[in-house]
Amino acid sequence: MNAAILKGRLSGVGTGPGDPELLTLKAVRAIGEADVIAFFCKKGGTGNGRAIVEAHIRPGTLELPLVYPVTTETHKDGADYRGPISDFFDRSAEDIAACLDAGKNVVVLSEGDPLFYGSYMHLHVRLQNRYRAEVVAGVTAMSGCWSMTGLPLVQGDDILSVLPGTLSEEKLVERLADTDGAVIMKVGRNLPKIRRALASVGKLSGALYVERGTMSNGAAQKLEERDESPAPYFSIVLVPGWSTRPGEAG
Amino acid sequence: MNAAILKGRLSGVGTGPGDPELLTLKAVRAIGEADVIAFFCKKGGTGNGRAIVEAHIRPGTLELPLVYPVTTETHKDGADYRGPISDFFDRSAEDIAACLDAGKNVVVLSEGDPLFYGSYMHLHVRLQNRYRAEVVAGVTAMSGCWSMTGLPLVQGDDILSVLPGTLSEEKLVERLADTDGAVIMKVGRNLPKIRRALASVGKLSGALYVERGTMSNGAAQKLEERDESPAPYFSIVLVPGWSTRPGEAG
Repeated sequence: MNAAILKGRLSGVGTGPGDPELLTLKAVRAIGEADVIAFFCKKGGTGNGRAIVEAHIRPGTLELPLVYPVTTETHKDGADYRGPISDFFDRSAEDIAACLDAGKNVVVLSEGDPLFYGSYMHLHVRLQNRYRAEVVAGVTAMSGCWSMTGLPLVQGDDILSVLPGTLSEEKLVERLADTDGAVIMKVGRNLPKIRRALASVGKLSGALYVERGTMSNGAAQKLEERDESPAPYFSIVLVPGWSTRPGEAG
Repeated sequence: MNAAILKGRLSGVGTGPGDPELLTLKAVRAIGEADVIAFFCKKGGTGNGRAIVEAHIRPGTLELPLVYPVTTETHKDGADYRGPISDFFDRSAEDIAACLDAGKNVVVLSEGDPLFYGSYMHLHVRLQNRYRAEVVAGVTAMSGCWSMTGLPLVQGDDILSVLPGTLSEEKLVERLADTDGAVIMKVGRNLPKIRRALASVGKLSGALYVERGTMSNGAAQKLEERDESPAPYFSIVLVPGWSTRPGEAG
């Protein structure tokens, strides 16, 4: 008998944008079959992902919190961040490898979709060649947000650009001028800059601001009407494209 | 009693990329509660969306096929296409309105996510002000494809561009040079042009070609190794970004 087949299976499982009903059937099955549920969280918390899937965790399932070593959203390009975060992903991968070596199936929860701006991918690249690894796609946060607002985003031959709010104002203006639809992530303290960039290309009036899309405390409003107070890090801005509109209502 | 509350509810429901297990719990519930299931399809077919959800349709549920009047993928900008397709969405909306007026709850199936390049949005804009209308987000085809291949697409402050393969070669080159990750949709007969554009910006070697992602007959390969035969219309090309890689292995 090949010892390899006794090793556990790694699954990166998307939990969707927040509404527990936006979990997929495949995610529910993977969570229910898991020996170990791992999830990223800040010190002192348990993470949104675990809260979303809580109802589906079998009693007796082991839980493996992966606690981020840094909590600030700034200076992520600095060496002072890169070293610790890379070490953290290395250590997390080895903790999970120990479970897999012991024959346990491990599910790593990933808010939204695992391979779309998710931390899970750092584990996947470290472990995929050593173990059976699968990714269970999830509904992205941006899909959750535009669905909550009922805003048609892109159609036909539209171009969609997903932009981090951390881009410079000049770069944001350039990108927003040259796309149909846009999703701006990581709004946070970048809100005033994003608003100026949208105004300068004439796209402010159609833009929506969404906080905690699909969660029970989610909220959306026209970006024009949003006050200047700092936005939560995970709020996003939606800019509708849909320019060609072959089937637009009269 | 207000007559309005006797009217049915409209739900645009994302069916996900193809694997029936990538349906959300919310989609399953909406389909199970529907009085009428409507779906877009070509003449003589029943559409992928209906096949994906088949196991969840209650016996006795009415089915309302919305049969596209045109099947060619060409000349969509021409007046000969716009007139008939706009009339088709008008007629489809009125057929659904008749069901809603009769107090029936109507689910319109939408492959992937309803407001992301989906036909459902043409019905939503025509009906949302006259009836209660909700959108149930779904896993997009692109999420399904990159998850199937395990290819991390974008991370950190990466920019993602979703581009139609119908763009001119010059425009494709310009867009591909100026993004981190990219998803190219509507590959079809545009495959040679897409390959040339990727080669000219040095991004061909990392690109993947995916057909029918997450379906049982799905297939993925390096775009470099794909032969020159025409691709199915719904195949896509994935170009990984992930340029900053703060937590890259090794």
